[in-house]
Amino acid sequence: MANVRSWTLTDVAQRVFVDRLDLNPSVVAVPSEVPWAIRKRTLRGGLCDGVDIIEVDNGALSFTLVPTRGMGLWKGSYRGTFIGWQAPVAGPVNPWFVNPLDQGGLGWLKGFDECIVRCGLGSNGPPCTDVVPDNNGNPSKVNLTLHGRIANLPANRVEIQIKPGPPTELTVIGVVDESMLFCPQLRLVTRISTTVGSNRLTISDRIVNFREVADEVELLYHCNFGMPFIDKGARLVAPSLSVAPRDARAVEGLAGYDTYLGPTPGYVEQCYWHDLAAGSDGMTLAMLRNSDGDNGVVLRYPKAQLPCFTQWKNTVGEREGYVTGMEPGINLPNPKTFEREKGRVVVLQPGASYSSDLTLEIHDQAEGVAAVEAEVASLLAGRKTVVHPRPIATWSPGA
Amino acid sequence: MANVRSWTLTDVAQRVFVDRLDLNPSVVAVPSEVPWAIRKRTLRGGLCDGVDIIEVDNGALSFTLVPTRGMGLWKGSYRGTFIGWQAPVAGPVNPWFVNPLDQGGLGWLKGFDECIVRCGLGSNGPPCTDVVPDNNGNPSKVNLTLHGRIANLPANRVEIQIKPGPPTELTVIGVVDESMLFCPQLRLVTRISTTVGSNRLTISDRIVNFREVADEVELLYHCNFGMPFIDKGARLVAPSLSVAPRDARAVEGLAGYDTYLGPTPGYVEQCYWHDLAAGSDGMTLAMLRNSDGDNGVVLRYPKAQLPCFTQWKNTVGEREGYVTGMEPGINLPNPKTFEREKGRVVVLQPGASYSSDLTLEIHDQAEGVAAVEAEVASLLAGRKTVVHPRPIATWSPGA
Amino acid sequence: MANVRSWTLTDVAQRVFVDRLDLNPSVVAVPSEVPWAIRKRTLRGGLCDGVDIIEVDNGALSFTLVPTRGMGLWKGSYRGTFIGWQAPVAGPVNPWFVNPLDQGGLGWLKGFDECIVRCGLGSNGPPCTDVVPDNNGNPSKVNLTLHGRIANLPANRVEIQIKPGPPTELTVIGVVDESMLFCPQLRLVTRISTTVGSNRLTISDRIVNFREVADEVELLYHCNFGMPFIDKGARLVAPSLSVAPRDARAVEGLAGYDTYLGPTPGYVEQCYWHDLAAGSDGMTLAMLRNSDGDNGVVLRYPKAQLPCFTQWKNTVGEREGYVTGMEPGINLPNPKTFEREKGRVVVLQPGASYSSDLTLEIHDQAEGVAAVEAEVASLLAGRKTVVHPRPIATWSPGA
Repeated sequence: MANVRSWTLTDVAQRVFVDRLDLNPSVVAVPSEVPWAIRKRTLRGGLCDGVDIIEVDNGALSFTLVPTRGMGLWKGSYRGTFIGWQAPVAGPVNPWFVNPLDQGGLGWLKGFDECIVRCGLGSNGPPCTDVVPDNNGNPSKVNLTLHGRIANLPANRVEIQIKPGPPTELTVIGVVDESMLFCPQLRLVTRISTTVGSNRLTISDRIVNFREVADEVELLYHCNFGMPFIDKGARLVAPSLSVAPRDARAVEGLAGYDTYLGPTPGYVEQCYWHDLAAGSDGMTLAMLRNSDGDNGVVLRYPKAQLPCFTQWKNTVGEREGYVTGMEPGINLPNPKTFEREKGRVVVLQPGASYSSDLTLEIHDQAEGVAAVEAEVASLLAGRKTVVHPRPIATWSPGA
Repeated sequence: MANVRSWTLTDVAQRVFVDRLDLNPSVVAVPSEVPWAIRKRTLRGGLCDGVDIIEVDNGALSFTLVPTRGMGLWKGSYRGTFIGWQAPVAGPVNPWFVNPLDQGGLGWLKGFDECIVRCGLGSNGPPCTDVVPDNNGNPSKVNLTLHGRIANLPANRVEIQIKPGPPTELTVIGVVDESMLFCPQLRLVTRISTTVGSNRLTISDRIVNFREVADEVELLYHCNFGMPFIDKGARLVAPSLSVAPRDARAVEGLAGYDTYLGPTPGYVEQCYWHDLAAGSDGMTLAMLRNSDGDNGVVLRYPKAQLPCFTQWKNTVGEREGYVTGMEPGINLPNPKTFEREKGRVVVLQPGASYSSDLTLEIHDQAEGVAAVEAEVASLLAGRKTVVHPRPIATWSPGA
Repeated sequence: MANVRSWTLTDVAQRVFVDRLDLNPSVVAVPSEVPWAIRKRTLRGGLCDGVDIIEVDNGALSFTLVPTRGMGLWKGSYRGTFIGWQAPVAGPVNPWFVNPLDQGGLGWLKGFDECIVRCGLGSNGPPCTDVVPDNNGNPSKVNLTLHGRIANLPANRVEIQIKPGPPTELTVIGVVDESMLFCPQLRLVTRISTTVGSNRLTISDRIVNFREVADEVELLYHCNFGMPFIDKGARLVAPSLSVAPRDARAVEGLAGYDTYLGPTPGYVEQCYWHDLAAGSDGMTLAMLRNSDGDNGVVLRYPKAQLPCFTQWKNTVGEREGYVTGMEPGINLPNPKTFEREKGRVVVLQPGASYSSDLTLEIHDQAEGVAAVEAEVASLLAGRKTVVHPRPIATWSPGA
């Protein structure tokens, strides 16, 4: 087995912090046919001031990770094709500038411009009031804000690992604590890996409850893509056993739930819940492909880890956030109180952990896109998608 | 036409950031009889930690601009005379330390120590509850906080331009976005210019709605001055066609609305609304002059751009914020809901913009002050100021 | 008298900021038998990013002060014995990451991991709604949040003083303003001193009302200790004339109020209020000692300055914040409205100040611990502690 080499970029406990780092085959003396690179920078100015980023370029696929924003994946590129979306925010935004309580609990949106952002760990979904024990053990009301805390917490440990190949594997490890006295104490340990020259990366997360009482976890990967993966006529290709609209607004678009409009100023978001089929290996997938069928972005993951899938359509004007989200999760992004009632909130015992693995895969050729479509068809094995005409009670509050 | 030379200090999109810069005639090789200077610094420590400032000194008038605080004008000096006020806050304060929701929605005050600070762009005035569409298009309640967001947002683009003269013109350009998904997306593009050796500077602002639906704008320039421009017997000299007290407290001081007390511990603020006369060129002005009449600070601007004028008297103790504000605005600093009802909220169509130009002019000789008084008299052309004895319904909620 | 030498680390008004400093006997050319040291650093990464710390090591006792967090004392060590506690937060946490309004007003806990943290200055205790005059002099509701603002405000002036001995005295001075327009304007001026080779440090605070109207002050020193000062069987040794439980939960543990459990996952905090005896010199003290009686941490202070004493027991699991607090204060950590009613809120006239002095002393030998126990017994002079069986009306709301 090849020797793994590692570089610690941040370790708060040990007072380690590397402001700037450049790794590549010649620097690390690992011969490689493909000229990969890893760069660490700290941004300055505007809303990005003080944000640490790590740019990983495997020679074909490149992507930017943001330790300062809970180890989210900001944007990427595959052989020149942009991966992500154009948010109306010039990020990545330092959490200093994000007050989740703003705008009626929607303040999280002030920092939202990532391609992949985790929603959680204690809660996600829209703002709601929850009742939790306070420091005296008495029930107390707290305002849960949109999509929880994890995206606005910095990593207190960041490490880079390089495992010489072929294929050489590039890994970034981050540790983010969502914790405070008297409250849930959850630790995210993430490994984000890619192999040199490949069209994919894998996010392997472990959430640890390091408190000594049981606590709840919600988790959703908000994976967001604009052009060129969506355009007029783009489609979501997924092995959906059933689909339901989230609400009355989603009912309006139900007939074309799996296709996309071009930029449509004034469009109001539509959400659909999906139950996806998994293969005998437990794996499922979903692909967003453009109208021409020559660009596709695919998510692959074990369905048992992330049983819920949300499709978020937000085909507003191009400058104001034309985007769609594919969102695998432990739960649906409903108020936590509803998800708890429906049994979709995970309870972690003291010291226990929850693992999930999510692969992002890019295709920029019609052959690749067609092959994934065939995979989806094969997973469905002829079963037809049940499309619920109205929101259903299991998935939608008030349905 | 002379060649304009420019230096980019911040450009988040291009990852440009200049931590420190010193420009002067010899550095830029522009001969000048007057030794002007521009300095960029990043402050460290206390509430100022991480704040970027640009100090512009035209040889007579100097002033400090704060990209980190929405391109506000912190303090200045004219031939040794201090311009600004002594706030009970040791700023300029980094927005990190300002939570607008604090203190019942008055948290903005934690960062308030500028000479000229914009209030807006989506709203200004006291905290109130507004109803806006949420991401689902449903009406939702949001807490508008004191004087809005713009003063606590950093510029994501900053540039310096020097246009060799004579007279040489020094300009600082800044771009600040007040935006988030599902919400107003307003961009402030400001040019702040002065010519070498002059007693004035001009702030030229353009607010662009870069969202693809129509949105609302409020804007007010909170221009604040302490000693030596106010003292016991100082006066506001303005071509007021009419004046009304804001509320019962202002009625108490109505007889002397245009004169100032000396420092008065325990004083409670008084506000007066003015309708100012404009000249045939559309320009209006207002001056604050000290009791001796040898110090005067003047605002000049097209009345059509900023039709409202608020006079804020806060002659409390010297150490706790002895100050008065001259506040030209699109609107009055009332709750936004009231201003909307009165038609004083601007609606910008997609891609449209709103421009305003405000000149600050300083006089430190009796002749200059007297000349401005004559100008004001000439604008009024013998018309007498109508002083409303009580708050009036057009301007004051509940009147 | 020996010459005091001083180094200014931060002075916002003068734009002084020292990023890094190392002082020791050879650097400052003050001969010393004991190799003391003072180090200034700015931390990077995680929640500590941008936090200034000053490490003082007198050769036996070392401790870390945090200018960025209101001059709190983070952690310490005495001849190898750890002083402080293991909070579930990887601090010291930059106030940027702390929104006091979070979690129903308990957001302060997101930054709470210090050994000694001041609660105040305008208020402390649990979140409550208070009514204060707004800028118009009208009564307005404000949300007071847990333990007030001071711990999340940075010092705008920091200085180190060395007074050559023997014994050489090491002092850190900090100035922190808790102020804003229309609101209380309180200044904390703190001197934290230790003599080389000693087992103690003294915090001398002065709170100045620099507003020109009278204002209120609350202050409590939240002094927190985990292992090795508490363990199963550890005891609080204090000259308590009377003790009362805070609430029903505290009644449950009343029989053993002065002894501690080992780590107990699921434990809910218990608080006891104490009235301590003072000596003829006005001094009182309290000690926490471990079960073996060979580790003790002592607080000493004039009772007239800090008449109230709170004992906070939080013997939860080891990883989640096993800790107890000894909390001398001007007031008890009840809602400010209750403390005001009971006359325990100090009113400072304009320009007036309030002083308090608190000494922390460490013993790591049985002899030292026993001697303090004898001191406590001597202060009580045979008087028995009155233990109230239930919360009492003077000290507990709703009792």
